[in-house]
Parts: sequence; structure tokens; C-alpha cells
Amino acid sequence: MNTIEQYIRDVQDFPKEGIQFKDITTLLQDPKGINDCLTNLLNLLEDKKIDKVVGMESRGFFFGTLLAQKLNAGFVPVRKPGKLPYKSISESYELEYGTDNLEIHIDSIKKGEKVLVHDDVLATGGTAEAVKKLVERLGGEIVQFNFIMQLDFLNGKEKLKGYNVQSVLNY
Amino acid sequence: MNTIEQYIRDVQDFPKEGIQFKDITTLLQDPKGINDCLTNLLNLLEDKKIDKVVGMESRGFFFGTLLAQKLNAGFVPVRKPGKLPYKSISESYELEYGTDNLEIHIDSIKKGEKVLVHDDVLATGGTAEAVKKLVERLGGEIVQFNFIMQLDFLNGKEKLKGYNVQSVLNY
Repeated sequence: MNTIEQYIRDVQDFPKEGIQFKDITTLLQDPKGINDCLTNLLNLLEDKKIDKVVGMESRGFFFGTLLAQKLNAGFVPVRKPGKLPYKSISESYELEYGTDNLEIHIDSIKKGEKVLVHDDVLATGGTAEAVKKLVERLGGEIVQFNFIMQLDFLNGKEKLKGYNVQSVLNY
Repeated sequence: MNTIEQYIRDVQDFPKEGIQFKDITTLLQDPKGINDCLTNLLNLLEDKKIDKVVGMESRGFFFGTLLAQKLNAGFVPVRKPGKLPYKSISESYELEYGTDNLEIHIDSIKKGEKVLVHDDVLATGGTAEAVKKLVERLGGEIVQFNFIMQLDFLNGKEKLKGYNVQSVLNY
């Protein structure tokens, strides 16, 4: 068992009945949890030369910012529609019913910059795929998709074929 | 001029006409911006013995997590309704029209723990006041309210009278 597993709380029936939610707030509220998880995430990266860490709203902001600071990289938030104040581009992704959008500032990544994409969980891969498109439309080169957890039974890796997809924990 | 001011972008008419929004994404996308801002925020704290850093959704998550890691403290997110998976308590705050709520996990702060409350901006103080109530209902002792920016003309400090309220920049 990976040592960070002990910090994660299983919450039954969230956000709806039948789903067991992996809660990272118990990890965040323990300073040892933060440091262990951060070390694990950094260890997933072979090449530490990263220009930008992209983190998804909102749970990707926690370790996304920490990774950026440790890697001496900039941090770029990908946000839900209407949250970013400056000029943005947008990509849609599928929800169970309908679609939603994610946005990124047009000047947040420069052509050829090396990008680490981070989120807490890789589930169906819909949001990760949208972020992939956003980053590449800006000319960024994705070095790795980096997650705390990967829910293998949802097969999100399929949507990121040909990319380096890593996670600390696999369920 | 404080050195971090140069990293912040003014966006006109966001989120609505007549408002000049202080955009910190330009600060975050520069590794020097992250480090300068973090150093400035840490310098606001005289006593660095902090058990928990509380950060407000979503822009308080960026430097909230960084502060927690540097202070060897836990990080506790305060979130909008329905986002926290476990048992939570709730406080309302006033919006321009109507009210909204903020939530915190009931087991996120222990009685007597020393708490640093962080957000990017202190505006009217409505959300900060709600967080104050949440933290104190859990028995936490607020050591400081710590912001990147304070919009003095909105007088948010009034709502936090008797508390140690600090910010890197004042407008």
C-alpha cells in the first residue's frame, strides 16, 4: 500500500447514491499528508524541466500550485466558464447528461513550453481530454498528465492515448 | 511600490461593467511571482506556529496550500454548498442580491488549533466574516486574516474588527 492511501477518506454515496468518493481533504489537513503526496507526485516526473503546471478547477489547484512552486514553474488554472477575467479559449467535455466547458487564458502558455497537467483524480478522462486540447491549441507541449488517483475501471486513460499518464494511486 | 504589484493584471469591466478586476493569474504563471508573493505573505505573520491554514474557494486555494506547506500546517478548504463530501457546517453571507453559503468539514479543525485564514482579496468582508464564524464554531483560534490584496474603499476590515488583518497590497 502506498503511504498516502491512509490519508484519503472514502465517503459513501457522494456526490450521489452508489458512488464511493475519494476525499482528499483529510490528506490536505495533515502536513505530513501534503508533503508525502507532493513527494510522490514529483517522483512520477522523470524530467523535471517544466515551464507550466496546468491545474483543473478546483481540486487540481491544491497540488497543482505546490508542484509549480517546487518545479520552479508557473501555474495556470483551467476554469469553468465565466471565471477567468481575461481573454480565454474554451473546450467542451461530456457530462452524464449534456456538456460543459473549460477555459484557459490565451496568454497563459507560450508556444513550445513544457507543460505538466495535474488533477486530483482521473475518472472518465473527459476533463483531461478538454485540457489537452486547450494546452495544445496554445502551442504547449504536454510532458505528463499527473494525478493523485486513477480510477482504472472508468478507463480515462483511453482518452489520453499516446500521452504519458501517471498517478500515485490506482483503484 | 511592492514588487508583487507588477505581476497583477488589471482587467476592466469584470465581472461586470465599471469594475476593475485584479487578476492574479499573471502572477501565478510566473515562478518568480509565486515565490515573491509567498515570501510576502509569510512575512505578514509574526508568529509562524500555525496548525491549519483555511483557504476560500477557489482563489484562496492557490496560496492557501502553499502557505500551509511552508508553515508545516494542514490546509482546510472552505467551499461553496454541496462541494464538500463529508459532514459540514454552513454559514451564510450577503451578496449584492440575496445570500449564499460557505461550508467547512466538521472535523477539519480541532478545538484550540491556531488558524491562519487566507484569501486572495479582502473586498466587502462578507466571505471572510462567514469563514470567521465557521472556524470559531469548530473551536479554532484565528491568528490572522491574510490577503494578497485589500480593497480599502470597500471597508471589509470593519467586519473583522478586533482581528489581526494583514495584506501585501492595499488599494
